[in-house]
Amino acid sequence: SLRLYDITHEIPAYNIWEAAYRLNQAAPYWPKGTVFVSVVDPGVGTERKSVVLKTKSGHYFVSPDNGTLTLVAKSLGIAEVREINEAVNRRKGSGKSYTFFGRDVYAYTAARLASGKISFNEVGNRLPDSVVKINYQQAVLENGSIKGNIPVLDVQYGNVWTNIPDSLVFKAGWKYGDSLMVQVFQKDSSVYIGSVPLVKTFGEVPEGSTLGYFNSLMNFSLAINMGSFSDKYQVHSGPEWSIVIRL
Amino acid sequence: SLRLYDITHEIPAYNIWEAAYRLNQAAPYWPKGTVFVSVVDPGVGTERKSVVLKTKSGHYFVSPDNGTLTLVAKSLGIAEVREINEAVNRRKGSGKSYTFFGRDVYAYTAARLASGKISFNEVGNRLPDSVVKINYQQAVLENGSIKGNIPVLDVQYGNVWTNIPDSLVFKAGWKYGDSLMVQVFQKDSSVYIGSVPLVKTFGEVPEGSTLGYFNSLMNFSLAINMGSFSDKYQVHSGPEWSIVIRL
Amino acid sequence: SLRLYDITHEIPAYNIWEAAYRLNQAAPYWPKGTVFVSVVDPGVGTERKSVVLKTKSGHYFVSPDNGTLTLVAKSLGIAEVREINEAVNRRKGSGKSYTFFGRDVYAYTAARLASGKISFNEVGNRLPDSVVKINYQQAVLENGSIKGNIPVLDVQYGNVWTNIPDSLVFKAGWKYGDSLMVQVFQKDSSVYIGSVPLVKTFGEVPEGSTLGYFNSLMNFSLAINMGSFSDKYQVHSGPEWSIVIRL
Repeated sequence: SLRLYDITHEIPAYNIWEAAYRLNQAAPYWPKGTVFVSVVDPGVGTERKSVVLKTKSGHYFVSPDNGTLTLVAKSLGIAEVREINEAVNRRKGSGKSYTFFGRDVYAYTAARLASGKISFNEVGNRLPDSVVKINYQQAVLENGSIKGNIPVLDVQYGNVWTNIPDSLVFKAGWKYGDSLMVQVFQKDSSVYIGSVPLVKTFGEVPEGSTLGYFNSLMNFSLAINMGSFSDKYQVHSGPEWSIVIRL
Repeated sequence: SLRLYDITHEIPAYNIWEAAYRLNQAAPYWPKGTVFVSVVDPGVGTERKSVVLKTKSGHYFVSPDNGTLTLVAKSLGIAEVREINEAVNRRKGSGKSYTFFGRDVYAYTAARLASGKISFNEVGNRLPDSVVKINYQQAVLENGSIKGNIPVLDVQYGNVWTNIPDSLVFKAGWKYGDSLMVQVFQKDSSVYIGSVPLVKTFGEVPEGSTLGYFNSLMNFSLAINMGSFSDKYQVHSGPEWSIVIRL
Repeated sequence: SLRLYDITHEIPAYNIWEAAYRLNQAAPYWPKGTVFVSVVDPGVGTERKSVVLKTKSGHYFVSPDNGTLTLVAKSLGIAEVREINEAVNRRKGSGKSYTFFGRDVYAYTAARLASGKISFNEVGNRLPDSVVKINYQQAVLENGSIKGNIPVLDVQYGNVWTNIPDSLVFKAGWKYGDSLMVQVFQKDSSVYIGSVPLVKTFGEVPEGSTLGYFNSLMNFSLAINMGSFSDKYQVHSGPEWSIVIRL
């Protein structure tokens, strides 16, 4: 009666930061006790730890500890972290394999934990209450400007999502209809600078025009009506992508 | 015990006409009482209505009324149309979101309807028995020629599907082995003109050769054996794509 | 209570050899009695036979007999082969369709067999105990060189998989840390020649460097750390792709 769901297999290769964001976006919709398996693991077989994070919300996350857990640890709180004891929690006969921990260690451990074959304590030894964190620009309002990060793209449409919540935009005193100055940086390079209207729906601007809106998570985002902002202006996402908005 | 199925997430962005076609292609395979959710909604948040269509076949379709329902309304018949009352049938706490009705309104309403939480009457007020219709070339035989539309591509292979049934081709007096003159138009521009043999299987022509055949729905289609007709001749699909065939 | 699973819809168009490999890779994980449907069928409607193979392991494979069964027949053993009797085992009303046997014949027969509507004997007449075989370079150690085939790519990453097991590499006397001379051929053309270190994990070489490793099936494979070997050196896969390795 154990149920398995594929949330996504579409995280771009090696993109730990997008995995972190999508995991944090999805997790709160699932009940307490859910066991998540997240394997974006470019360092497979090297010295990064294999862990299970139990959050204060009662969710479990089975993953390499390589930054993937940055956001769920922050938003859901760390209850306990345990290192997977591979002497016990590893698929039988897979000891010679060094490149497929997703199958041999993570899915195997998650299945045992979710099915009650092992308790959380039996995952392995307890580690300090922390996980590897990726550094990124948190959303802040300072001197009339808001800074933030571009964690992911809404890739089918080329919309550019930020981590700036609507509440912060309204706290800055800006409102629907305002024209906002937006600048996007990759590290220290300015990639885009322009003015966009803050609108409720794409249809409020002509086809082909840029706009600012709040996405399904109520975070500030950039788009082109019936077009791709990301393609047109070569704006992408990741920990090193930041955005500054002012009136 | 409610069962959920993803029919497709591969409708090209903004392509209402392909959504209409695939919905109509899929619906008859599902039992009476099935609730379909179809959200290709480039006008999200603008004035198009959110509706549930009940067809005479006893199926329910939850969708923006933007043309997506053109074909199921025609083939299955309209029993009743109701406008979704968002005061009741909208995910709690989603009132600030204007760009994700798929989650906030359509999936939410469909889940409540399918699970019996609300009756069809409780969806909202009844509307007139009609839906927004997309205009397209219906399949007709006139003066020895058949005209029709190209609703979709069989995209993995580049085969070009039409809405012309085998019955109409045979009614015209043509038969397997005949060579047919085919002309494809996008609006008024001629995009392709050529002669193709009407065959039963791809293997009846050499690799790389064009052919006409009846697809899995027994509609006339164009293909290249082991190649892509769509790519080679830049023939695409949509309401504005039409085709004329004669002997 | 019959359960259906999609293993993959991502076999490249017309690629019978990749279908054969993925089928053989997946099958042993499924229990005895599982009915597999495999339809890569460029010759649909032509004279290739439609069959069900029962293997000595007790698995059933419903497929065109066009080479797809080469590897499962070899690894699991042929217990019996029966030709599908389309007079009985074909979806009602589909007799006019010549291009969609996946739906009309293979899925239909598999569903009837898996659900117990028909016994294996009722599939149709027994054929000789053989299937159509694709010719490829088996893995052999000769005069200090190992020859093999490149059946598939690990396509998301561009890693190049071979059919050479770790046991054969170790039998040749080579060990982790050794530098191996690798040459790849498409038919008789040399496509790649180079030296790669045999390592356990990608992280043992700098980003952008080539490496040799054992994949999740413990077969020798070629990769670039954080890059695509296939793209960089235009190495692809298929029956006509072979590889020679020596110290």
